[in-house]
Amino acid sequence: MKSSTSFSNSKVLITGGLGFIGSNLARRLVDTGATISVVDSLIPEYGGNLFNISGFENKLRVNISDVRDEHSMKHLVQGQDFLFNLAGQTSHMDSMQDPFTDLEINARAQLSILEACRKHNVAIKIVFASTRQIYGKPDHLPVDETHLLRPVDVNGINKMAGEWYHILYNNVYGLRACALRLTNTYGPRMRIKDARQTFLGIWIRFLLEGKPFEVWGGEQIRDFTYVDDVVDALMLAACEDKANGQVYNLGGEGNVSLKVLAEMSVAANRGGTFTLREFPIDRKRIDIGDYYADWRLAQDQLGWQPKVSLAEGLHRTLDYYRTNLEAYR
Amino acid sequence: MKSSTSFSNSKVLITGGLGFIGSNLARRLVDTGATISVVDSLIPEYGGNLFNISGFENKLRVNISDVRDEHSMKHLVQGQDFLFNLAGQTSHMDSMQDPFTDLEINARAQLSILEACRKHNVAIKIVFASTRQIYGKPDHLPVDETHLLRPVDVNGINKMAGEWYHILYNNVYGLRACALRLTNTYGPRMRIKDARQTFLGIWIRFLLEGKPFEVWGGEQIRDFTYVDDVVDALMLAACEDKANGQVYNLGGEGNVSLKVLAEMSVAANRGGTFTLREFPIDRKRIDIGDYYADWRLAQDQLGWQPKVSLAEGLHRTLDYYRTNLEAYR
Repeated sequence: MKSSTSFSNSKVLITGGLGFIGSNLARRLVDTGATISVVDSLIPEYGGNLFNISGFENKLRVNISDVRDEHSMKHLVQGQDFLFNLAGQTSHMDSMQDPFTDLEINARAQLSILEACRKHNVAIKIVFASTRQIYGKPDHLPVDETHLLRPVDVNGINKMAGEWYHILYNNVYGLRACALRLTNTYGPRMRIKDARQTFLGIWIRFLLEGKPFEVWGGEQIRDFTYVDDVVDALMLAACEDKANGQVYNLGGEGNVSLKVLAEMSVAANRGGTFTLREFPIDRKRIDIGDYYADWRLAQDQLGWQPKVSLAEGLHRTLDYYRTNLEAYR
Repeated sequence: MKSSTSFSNSKVLITGGLGFIGSNLARRLVDTGATISVVDSLIPEYGGNLFNISGFENKLRVNISDVRDEHSMKHLVQGQDFLFNLAGQTSHMDSMQDPFTDLEINARAQLSILEACRKHNVAIKIVFASTRQIYGKPDHLPVDETHLLRPVDVNGINKMAGEWYHILYNNVYGLRACALRLTNTYGPRMRIKDARQTFLGIWIRFLLEGKPFEVWGGEQIRDFTYVDDVVDALMLAACEDKANGQVYNLGGEGNVSLKVLAEMSVAANRGGTFTLREFPIDRKRIDIGDYYADWRLAQDQLGWQPKVSLAEGLHRTLDYYRTNLEAYR
């Protein structure tokens, strides 16, 4: 991968760096010769887990702090060449029950990180992890980046604002920044304790514990990106000047219904059961129907494409948790 | 106007009610038999001015407080039938120099007003004053509501979030809410002390003071809505069930270049001079080129259309300030 060489001797900061995607990125970047700092709040309900960097404790620097802490962020961004800005509140339910905390993390903290970069490190390149959730219910499939944004929860609105602060600061202040709109990401180091990060997490856990898991609805079509493919995209976006000021959808190779995904998960586990149930009423109200992304812009401009098939990705994920289950439940 | 009768015996709260549009709305509503409360922070840099309700002091209730004050807002929304939510920070420059204050007013306070309504007065109907600024640079003209939102300043991003909180709370909690995307609004009671609210304000002031005013650029085409027409739209949207969950562009009858507008202003004043100058560099970076709205959705669904021509509106505006200049400078 062309971009690997771009990181040698560079300094890289990763917010949410002990989380699912952040830790996978950090582990990959260590091999490029970059100097890595990860920032994480380790708030128990979020995705950070020190076990995610096990074996790498001496190869990177860990700084426990919250992106809402303006003073620590102001210090931490200085001297960095790259910022992978992945920290966020991701739970739909939490955003509705406590919209202000979601706003503080997903909007206000993003603004303060950008202000810190503008004032103290305008040469930094930032890649922001946005989400396909901001599209809401698709008008057409696949969804490309020209689709209107119509978020269906507080989380989506605040993420939309957070994404746009990045684009704005790129356009107005020449601070190089871009955003990737991630779809369902899965793989080793995702949260499986509960469904806060992704429903697939709790499926995996129940499968490995020999319990039946629940599939809500079942007919909805979704796309899935294996975490290594997301890491590829983050690194490519960081190194590509064309990306500055742009947003890119990520996606997957195959688009499947949740019922088929459940069957594939059972097959990858060589055993297991699930039950189909109706959407709860508060979920039904924000149901977006089918979704899958058109990721050709990322392919054209970044040279990215997903490499790991869903079957292979599920297999690798189950292998990981079979060995490391205790560290995640 | 059909909607006038809908307000008799109703209770109406107007945030930003001592400001330009809010005070014009309040004065109109008094005649419908509604009980009006206006909330305003009277922050000197914003649009509130006690003179705006002169003659009406005993016909409505004035409550000085800030929409960021959650406790006062929680109390004030209770028992109201309608909320015209017009309070906001509108200055581009202020939003870039102090993005956090802009976020607190245009995003966080909106969320807390909606939370207060959801918990304490779910039957209220809310009309939110949004802005065409959230569209950014148009892809095509005229701009309709299906145009992508690509805000070009912090103010635009926060207003976009504020608008979407309203739509979300309508969709998820059944709290009836809608938004009007206002374009350049002008008329009696606008701020003319400086260009914080609209450049037309300072033009009017300089014209009446016999000084030359500055036109930046000059070729850009814009649309203008006379304030009485905006008041019409607010009242129609409040009374129309079809509006719930919708956003509507407002616009004007004629779309003119700023140079032509300057000439019309001089003509309406029967005298005056202006100079054309280049855009300052920090403005040029966020220049959106030409803009004018397609407001047919508001026409179709609300039965709204602008009635006051630009020539007539400028004439009335100059008349107002000729008499009341001292109260505004």
